[in-house]
Amino acid sequence: MTITLAENYGFCFGVKRAIDIAEETQGAFTYGPLIHNSKEINRLKNDFNVGLQEDISQFKPQDTVVIRTHGIEKNELQYLKDKEVDIIDATCPYVTKPQEIVQEMSQKGYDIVIFGDENHPEIKGVKSYAEGNVYVVLTKEELADIPLKNRIAVVAQTTRKVDNYLDLINYMIVKYKEVRVFNTICNATFENQDAARDLAQKSDIMIVIGGKNSSNTKQLLAIAKEYCPDSYLIEGPEELQDSWFKQKEACGITAGASTPDWIIKQIKEKIASF
Amino acid sequence: MTITLAENYGFCFGVKRAIDIAEETQGAFTYGPLIHNSKEINRLKNDFNVGLQEDISQFKPQDTVVIRTHGIEKNELQYLKDKEVDIIDATCPYVTKPQEIVQEMSQKGYDIVIFGDENHPEIKGVKSYAEGNVYVVLTKEELADIPLKNRIAVVAQTTRKVDNYLDLINYMIVKYKEVRVFNTICNATFENQDAARDLAQKSDIMIVIGGKNSSNTKQLLAIAKEYCPDSYLIEGPEELQDSWFKQKEACGITAGASTPDWIIKQIKEKIASF
Repeated sequence: MTITLAENYGFCFGVKRAIDIAEETQGAFTYGPLIHNSKEINRLKNDFNVGLQEDISQFKPQDTVVIRTHGIEKNELQYLKDKEVDIIDATCPYVTKPQEIVQEMSQKGYDIVIFGDENHPEIKGVKSYAEGNVYVVLTKEELADIPLKNRIAVVAQTTRKVDNYLDLINYMIVKYKEVRVFNTICNATFENQDAARDLAQKSDIMIVIGGKNSSNTKQLLAIAKEYCPDSYLIEGPEELQDSWFKQKEACGITAGASTPDWIIKQIKEKIASF
Repeated sequence: MTITLAENYGFCFGVKRAIDIAEETQGAFTYGPLIHNSKEINRLKNDFNVGLQEDISQFKPQDTVVIRTHGIEKNELQYLKDKEVDIIDATCPYVTKPQEIVQEMSQKGYDIVIFGDENHPEIKGVKSYAEGNVYVVLTKEELADIPLKNRIAVVAQTTRKVDNYLDLINYMIVKYKEVRVFNTICNATFENQDAARDLAQKSDIMIVIGGKNSSNTKQLLAIAKEYCPDSYLIEGPEELQDSWFKQKEACGITAGASTPDWIIKQIKEKIASF
């Protein structure tokens, strides 16, 4: 049986970078969990002495704090600076960009429209950089009641679908004099999905690795099952069953965005041993 | 029989304004025909002594020249200034706007994309204001081979359809970092079409007034015929036939974008006399 990894899987660029930064910052705390994977958080604690702190008021001067990929609000950053905490910024560059754009455009007098979920930490952070009018919306219908000025700058949550972003923009282009559109969507999530689709078509068994409650992992499983009915979602190697692989010729592997490479490697080795 | 004018018909705002300007500038020449209607051009000559000059080299110092609604190229304007011609600018404000945008955006380092027909006088004028890279396209396919920079400003020929403009913009938004979209499309043409459609549905005879070779007039006739089979295209009152109106109850009137109000008035009066 051949075992093939999807062309894109697991951590995106921003998360890989944040973990590298954390590993190089022994003794630090991350402000909030670095990723939604408790095994990885334990590994960082045990192997690199990088702890987790969710309460910003608990940081003390000379603590070292790692800011996670989706960034934090501007006033939280200022709070940490005022406390003279040593700040290591692991905000994904794809998130820093919309923060900078929102700040610059609102300074120039543009109304800001952010396409995204206003409860998402990334969006709270991006929104906090506006110095004038700022609106977070998911649909064009929400825009109808907002008294926007004639000059608008638009950014999107990095993990949103570009098609929905275009819907919103098309509505504004027709209605307002100037719409300044920034392409801030990151394709990592969709690249993993595309690669899972390709691989599932060439496989007679698919192993999808990730959290059973993770929406992006469940999405990968659904895509895999569409093309390869024998697709299984597991969180670790102990869940693998020998019987799944009987008379199979091509095993494909993909993984959700919060799955560390070392878990994927363990699973691949166990499959090879069957 | 009732006689009803469409809610929007005939001259757009820019053409009405240009004619007002010409009427107030007796003794002037227009550089090129002010509108595509020879009767109106004759009227301006006979009643207001406003002539027509198509050869720019023929202007002499102290001549007064009226620039028509779709504007002229920047170097032609400079040529007239250098000749110390007295310039009366009747360029439509909806055309001046994209000229200004193209100049400012190219000074700021944006690549310029103009959605329109590169042989159209308006587009030649707008394009001439670019001080860097500028591309005139009608389809997204034309963009594929153009090495655009990551910051793009986009304007449209004022008479184009907004749907086709959106197609082009959506293509660029996905591909480039910043697309600065200016809404420079003027709705006058489409407002006339919408009003003709509404009126034709309530009429049992439609009179469409305009040049038989005018594409926008022919478009109005096609729309009228769709809802009211007894629709006629005429250029002047002498073409009206008494028999068309037998047993009709509701006559609707619309007119192409180059049809002066005084012709429409003559036709309306003749219909009322039947």
